[in-house]
Amino acid sequence: MSQNEFFQRHQNTLEQALNAIQSRDYWTPYSENPSPRVYGEDANQKGEEAFKATLGNYFELEMPGITGEVAGEPSPYGIEMGVRYPQVDHNVLIPEMKKAMKAWRDAGVDTRAGVCMEILDRLNKNSFEIAYGVMHTSGQGFMMAFQAGGPHAQDRGLEAVAYAYRAMKEVPESATWTKPQGKHDPLVLEKKFHIVPRGVALVVGCSTFPTWNTYPGLFASLVTGNPVIVKPHPAAILPAAVSIKIAQDVLKEAGFPPYLVSMVVDTAEAPITKELATHKDIKLIDFTGSNFFGTWLEDNARQAQVFTEKAGVNSVVIDSVTDIKAVARNLAFTLSLYSGQMCTTTQAIYVPRTGIKTADGEMSFDDVAQTLATATSKFLSDIDRATMVLGAIQSCATEARIKECEALGEVVLASTKLEHPQFPNARVHTPLILKVDAADKETFSEERFGPVSFIIATDSTEHSLQLAGEVISEKGAITLGVYSTDAAVLEQAEELAMDVGVALSCNLDGGVFVNQSAAFSDFHATGGNPASNASLTDIAFVSRRFITVQSRRHQ
Amino acid sequence: MSQNEFFQRHQNTLEQALNAIQSRDYWTPYSENPSPRVYGEDANQKGEEAFKATLGNYFELEMPGITGEVAGEPSPYGIEMGVRYPQVDHNVLIPEMKKAMKAWRDAGVDTRAGVCMEILDRLNKNSFEIAYGVMHTSGQGFMMAFQAGGPHAQDRGLEAVAYAYRAMKEVPESATWTKPQGKHDPLVLEKKFHIVPRGVALVVGCSTFPTWNTYPGLFASLVTGNPVIVKPHPAAILPAAVSIKIAQDVLKEAGFPPYLVSMVVDTAEAPITKELATHKDIKLIDFTGSNFFGTWLEDNARQAQVFTEKAGVNSVVIDSVTDIKAVARNLAFTLSLYSGQMCTTTQAIYVPRTGIKTADGEMSFDDVAQTLATATSKFLSDIDRATMVLGAIQSCATEARIKECEALGEVVLASTKLEHPQFPNARVHTPLILKVDAADKETFSEERFGPVSFIIATDSTEHSLQLAGEVISEKGAITLGVYSTDAAVLEQAEELAMDVGVALSCNLDGGVFVNQSAAFSDFHATGGNPASNASLTDIAFVSRRFITVQSRRHQ
Repeated sequence: MSQNEFFQRHQNTLEQALNAIQSRDYWTPYSENPSPRVYGEDANQKGEEAFKATLGNYFELEMPGITGEVAGEPSPYGIEMGVRYPQVDHNVLIPEMKKAMKAWRDAGVDTRAGVCMEILDRLNKNSFEIAYGVMHTSGQGFMMAFQAGGPHAQDRGLEAVAYAYRAMKEVPESATWTKPQGKHDPLVLEKKFHIVPRGVALVVGCSTFPTWNTYPGLFASLVTGNPVIVKPHPAAILPAAVSIKIAQDVLKEAGFPPYLVSMVVDTAEAPITKELATHKDIKLIDFTGSNFFGTWLEDNARQAQVFTEKAGVNSVVIDSVTDIKAVARNLAFTLSLYSGQMCTTTQAIYVPRTGIKTADGEMSFDDVAQTLATATSKFLSDIDRATMVLGAIQSCATEARIKECEALGEVVLASTKLEHPQFPNARVHTPLILKVDAADKETFSEERFGPVSFIIATDSTEHSLQLAGEVISEKGAITLGVYSTDAAVLEQAEELAMDVGVALSCNLDGGVFVNQSAAFSDFHATGGNPASNASLTDIAFVSRRFITVQSRRHQ
Repeated sequence: MSQNEFFQRHQNTLEQALNAIQSRDYWTPYSENPSPRVYGEDANQKGEEAFKATLGNYFELEMPGITGEVAGEPSPYGIEMGVRYPQVDHNVLIPEMKKAMKAWRDAGVDTRAGVCMEILDRLNKNSFEIAYGVMHTSGQGFMMAFQAGGPHAQDRGLEAVAYAYRAMKEVPESATWTKPQGKHDPLVLEKKFHIVPRGVALVVGCSTFPTWNTYPGLFASLVTGNPVIVKPHPAAILPAAVSIKIAQDVLKEAGFPPYLVSMVVDTAEAPITKELATHKDIKLIDFTGSNFFGTWLEDNARQAQVFTEKAGVNSVVIDSVTDIKAVARNLAFTLSLYSGQMCTTTQAIYVPRTGIKTADGEMSFDDVAQTLATATSKFLSDIDRATMVLGAIQSCATEARIKECEALGEVVLASTKLEHPQFPNARVHTPLILKVDAADKETFSEERFGPVSFIIATDSTEHSLQLAGEVISEKGAITLGVYSTDAAVLEQAEELAMDVGVALSCNLDGGVFVNQSAAFSDFHATGGNPASNASLTDIAFVSRRFITVQSRRHQ
């Protein structure tokens, strides 16, 4: 396999991706439709078989410094996983990865982009296997695990490749510099510009989106020349492992050491991330997870460039609506999807205590709350749909939190435990919706990860916007939704979004949801409030992953 | 003055700048030739008059929160400056600047770029006044003060505008997103993307390059929408003040609050920078200066994005040459220019103790050292040329250091104090060149800011490269020069430059010098070793100064 074959194979797709990040219209090369017509008649069956074949077995990866095995993750669906993964001595692995970096650096931008795109293409072809892995580690329902864990994650990976590719290509490989000297001969210099990677990169994965939140950092670092260690969450290793195996296969075929992409696994009992993240040779870190650990990384991994996505309090402000039922249906889906375990799920819903305007007249605060609760319980009344949408609760801590939160306000919709038709041990719970007063700021302004939301009675829409702004600047947020039929209110919301650095969605009442973002078009997080210090994906996300080193000499 | 007039006036220059950063050929709109034919018959005289008119007087700037006056700087040329500057309560100033930011943000990219380019154009027209200010604060000779403090600094400012402009324009202002839904109507969203500044920016200037090292951060932050406070070095305020006055004039003409660019002055006795830099509303910091303070800022101003250029040990490796005299002349100029007070001046010169090859046969280590010493003393034998090139020693600490360093090795060329023909109190000293052994690593690997250099006897060129690499990775460097007639050695040097993130110049023996860099073509510093965490100017230098905030709604 010539190294450049991969680039040629995918060049057209790369060009389309480069157009897409500029036009920001809908685009993807990876279909989100898990249909046999798209992925092949037996794709689902083969994917499931491949997933099942890993269960109870040792998952092999090629890395220097393997010292033993680590027992893997449980499943929120209650099935026995029993996968074992290689345990690696990172003090052996990191120096070897550093050595391998030179060949990867010298391969150049096109070759690296070709390899990354071949990896993404094979990830796409293995979307079903990955989907089963994502489902049984994160707890996502199958359809979501397929879409968010497969094509949508691949989109985000490709987006990172495209951004980095553009940034690297903006530096010419060479230039002739000719400075006139009046009547004398000009000064002439031949210059070379090298794209030089920072060093070994670390991607610290999360348990809820083991591929979607891992691919951007992984591909942004890899395509810019940095070897990458993925340190998956101990509760969601398999989808990372399958992805890394694919990356290693492609690297090997292209003639590179496969361990340019490696995996270090730890356990909740013996965490390794702090040691790994502060290793002197780790120069880039991507992290998704808690505020506590994200801030710890920012404060302590000072030898590295650190990109973090942390917690926040995503908010919705309801001022006035045309069709409250459409709005309630839209929000019911947002609150239900994956039991609110998305970094984009709404937690705080601000409604004036005096009620809102609708096309059918005034509607009281209580009626708004009740309409939302009814829409949610109705949406989840079908058990098959409910379990597909809700998925399972990833961690026992999140499951326990639902109960703990019941006392935090007046219950508008109680959370109930559901029996999953296929997986009797699955942790399935419907959303808890509470009513609170604007005065209870401490209650609703702390992130309550999971299916818990607050409908907050405010003095007015102005008060709603002010409170939402305060909470977002202090605690962060990735999404803000605003419902209003008043152009002036939407204008105010637009100002607020700029002031607190949050993405705004206005009047979503159809098939687009505030908690969903589309790669190539939506920037996920801004890097401008406490919920993140970086966006997926913009120039700032890629440009610090390499430096430019020049040389010059006379002709 | 319509806001867009400035943009229209300078659009063509901006387009050329955008081409230049891509082609990296020689280009500038600001002539470095201080000739009357270029700048006008009376430009020099008027500039000198304007400079003299500031002496002994109060320098007015428009800022909220002025509480009094601060006495200004002394001159290394020994003239009485006696300028007084406004003292500002930054706790009044910063909130007002924050308020002013909104109008500046909402003005949009083109308007801001137009204003920045008009400021640069007027700075250019005032190059003589600024040159006298730079000369009498930094100690640079007039010609250098004109070029480096005038057009070359303006180049770096324009380069920052061009990089930031390109980065901001890569985000469309709006987009329509149309996602097909099979037989159903597509999902359609209208999206807006806002470029949102980070907040109030701070530029901490240095005493040696009060404009060259200030303009990149100033213009990068300003054009991306951030109000900017310049905190000049207490020893070099005037050139910053003149620049800020010009910026304020242009801002006012364009209808913006002039204090969008402000100046906070402190004294060596009562420094304010730490308090200013850790103010919660300061979101961007650009710093040029010592390792100690640069690292302090990185560690403590955690609320801000911090860009630092710090100390380093710039190095030259001599392996073999064609014409040792040409090489020695070239290096003599580098060591002499501004008495080595450039962040790019060579300090460590590695030569094998067994000597080097030249076109005329072998040359011993001692002869190489002697040739360099002779070339330097010969170059400086003419007092007018000497004082013009050497300039004056900026600080008393640097002056004292020359004496202190004499004992660090065997003196090859002693430093002598020269009498300046025009300024009898000027601190003028010729360079000190010392011979040391490679074993004395602690001696030559510490930055000795000023006219002090070491010729280091190594075991071989391989040893030279290895030592240079070690010192650069540990202590940092902005420049590395290598002299070799052997392609393999140059290849090794190229590898080394990539490994330690330093710009390489090969075989400079004519009119280009290792300590000089040309905007639009040379990247100044890489951000990849301890001498800096950012480059002037690349994508990473501009892309973290703004965030993108989006909104979306159905049509």
